[in-house]
Amino acid sequence: MTWLDVGDDAPFDAWTLPYGVFSTDGQEPRVGVAVGSWVLDLSPVAGAELFDRPSLNPFLAAGRPTWDAVRARLLSLVGDPRHQTVVEAHLVPLRDVVLHLPFEVADYVDFYASQTHAENVGQLFRPDSPALPAAWKHLPIGYHGRAGTVVVSGTPIVRPSGLRRVGGPGGAVEFGPSLRLDIEAEAGFVVGTPSALGSRVPVGAFEDHVFGMVLVNDWSARDVQAFEYVPLGPFLGKSFATSVSPWVVPLAALAHARVSPPPRSPAVAGYLRDEEPWGLDVEFEVVWNGTVVSRPPLRDLYWTPAQQLAHLTVNGASLRTGDLYASGTVSGPRPGGSGCFLELTWNGAEPVTLADGSQRSFLEDGDLVTIRATAPGPSGRRMKLGEVTGTVTPSR
Amino acid sequence: MTWLDVGDDAPFDAWTLPYGVFSTDGQEPRVGVAVGSWVLDLSPVAGAELFDRPSLNPFLAAGRPTWDAVRARLLSLVGDPRHQTVVEAHLVPLRDVVLHLPFEVADYVDFYASQTHAENVGQLFRPDSPALPAAWKHLPIGYHGRAGTVVVSGTPIVRPSGLRRVGGPGGAVEFGPSLRLDIEAEAGFVVGTPSALGSRVPVGAFEDHVFGMVLVNDWSARDVQAFEYVPLGPFLGKSFATSVSPWVVPLAALAHARVSPPPRSPAVAGYLRDEEPWGLDVEFEVVWNGTVVSRPPLRDLYWTPAQQLAHLTVNGASLRTGDLYASGTVSGPRPGGSGCFLELTWNGAEPVTLADGSQRSFLEDGDLVTIRATAPGPSGRRMKLGEVTGTVTPSR
Repeated sequence: MTWLDVGDDAPFDAWTLPYGVFSTDGQEPRVGVAVGSWVLDLSPVAGAELFDRPSLNPFLAAGRPTWDAVRARLLSLVGDPRHQTVVEAHLVPLRDVVLHLPFEVADYVDFYASQTHAENVGQLFRPDSPALPAAWKHLPIGYHGRAGTVVVSGTPIVRPSGLRRVGGPGGAVEFGPSLRLDIEAEAGFVVGTPSALGSRVPVGAFEDHVFGMVLVNDWSARDVQAFEYVPLGPFLGKSFATSVSPWVVPLAALAHARVSPPPRSPAVAGYLRDEEPWGLDVEFEVVWNGTVVSRPPLRDLYWTPAQQLAHLTVNGASLRTGDLYASGTVSGPRPGGSGCFLELTWNGAEPVTLADGSQRSFLEDGDLVTIRATAPGPSGRRMKLGEVTGTVTPSR
Repeated sequence: MTWLDVGDDAPFDAWTLPYGVFSTDGQEPRVGVAVGSWVLDLSPVAGAELFDRPSLNPFLAAGRPTWDAVRARLLSLVGDPRHQTVVEAHLVPLRDVVLHLPFEVADYVDFYASQTHAENVGQLFRPDSPALPAAWKHLPIGYHGRAGTVVVSGTPIVRPSGLRRVGGPGGAVEFGPSLRLDIEAEAGFVVGTPSALGSRVPVGAFEDHVFGMVLVNDWSARDVQAFEYVPLGPFLGKSFATSVSPWVVPLAALAHARVSPPPRSPAVAGYLRDEEPWGLDVEFEVVWNGTVVSRPPLRDLYWTPAQQLAHLTVNGASLRTGDLYASGTVSGPRPGGSGCFLELTWNGAEPVTLADGSQRSFLEDGDLVTIRATAPGPSGRRMKLGEVTGTVTPSR
């Protein structure tokens, strides 16, 4: 399939071909594709107009025919040994590059589409109410997050401060650094093709508008969030930072990962009915200071990204190139599938023990969290989808 | 104060000097300042680098010393008759220009800072709970809205569709055009100077970061909102459109409008303590198909825009040039001060009668709503702050 020497340990294979923005010493950031342990500099092999750019947005805006044509060209370049000389001239070792935020984020929306996660959070945050909100099985519940604080993997996460209750539900309201800093393992979807204000994007047009997927860590200060979120939703508990992986995996590379979503009951409204299944067999791995603490499965997601997009626009809201929307925390129904530490440690009641023997309920200063993921590739083996990582630094 | 012939009926006086983006037949949009019934083309009199641009963002990013210097120059131009010839050469009648969205919106945040509004909505949406949410007097509750659907005054508003209950609280869930389309009269604040991720903007730095004010109509589909908003807040009920006035009034023009905010009890946290009062004596007028139906007063706002900015960033969230944050619906405690029709008609129970004899509970197709505002100017008289307008068109 490729003349490149891509070992099993390499960050990527020669099929995934995710896009990112990189720079090397003293040069301007530009678009590249990751293959094996290298970055292929795209500008010289696929055109400067779209790729000698500091973000993916011009390529995202170019639309699906261009995405497909460029991917076909790339598969040919790495697949056909006759291209070896030209490709090798433009490969840069991944270890030698700096990776940047791959696209300019227009609007950022976060959904709440994992039933297990919604039920767990409902029990923990609202013990006197039904675990699932009344609307949850009627529509994909979501909200807007802060686009300006979406950062690339590796960006240090300063512990946020805010008002929160200390000492339980009736406790005093105090200002200070979050005492319950958490992660959320999510899949994020990147919009390329915009849509007009007042029009809708049907479920079936998902592939025409969405270019690809990133891994998302939606850092969350649970104590700040719990105090502030009624009735308008999360705000400061989330808006301090959201990390994304530097490599955007094109939807086309996920063709072998598609699965049927779980059955929905009650039946969904017409605009949410899906003919083509867009469940995705993506499996995350959450690594806390080097210890794998959970493996959340995206395949159980109740609402697919195609349904999320249809919902997002059914009121006539327009899409812009660079819009990012994420699945919400991915948590599987089985033990070991929690996508956040709130669930993993049951709000701190059941700490986890890491490999070094230390115990954790929520994040401590200096902690490093890496979320990585895999999905079935064309060979039947699971391909790597990259990672999103971040270290917590003390509050200022 | 000015050699210009500015009558009392003119849209603006010669002090307010709000900034906008305009175009005339066949020309590119560029920055102008409204004075009397004219637009002064800024590029030839104040420099092409900042003003021969299709948005205010470069000028916003230039920072407060530049804002102050340009305003001083403009006051001199319209105040000193020696400049009459050069100014008159670059005046365009307002009736001859097309007005555009004045700035590229980065993130859009909406607060909930009017106590009367929060209490009224609490009673209507959550009759079994306390009218004010538990956190309401501790912090300015807010949420992120959709930046990509902020539109300039005059943009038609397509009636949004969505899932909502029909026939009361236990009614069936149905998909269709909103049956309770509403407005929200608000003041919006436009950020010029950015801030770094992980840092805070103190209350006292408000004037260094915020350039000016716009009038906002945060159109709201109350039935869609009521069904979807638990637990993550408003989403499709708001994200279809938010209209802003085309003219951004600089904070410097509001110097005579500043008033002390209402007393706060309990005492606020240190980061929300305000030394300099940033209450604003702005009075809105809501006009429904030509009938003035309410006059909401901004001066009663519990949380000032300076406090809102400090709150927005206290968790380390960064600001970008073009960030917009709005007050939330402005409703005064006296009758006739409702900033939305939900309150004005008490959720439709008390329809209003318009001048043509027709009755209204919520918006009907074809309805035109204009929100305008005034504030005290240097002469002691109230100056006009522009208007934001929109017509409802049928759902598609």
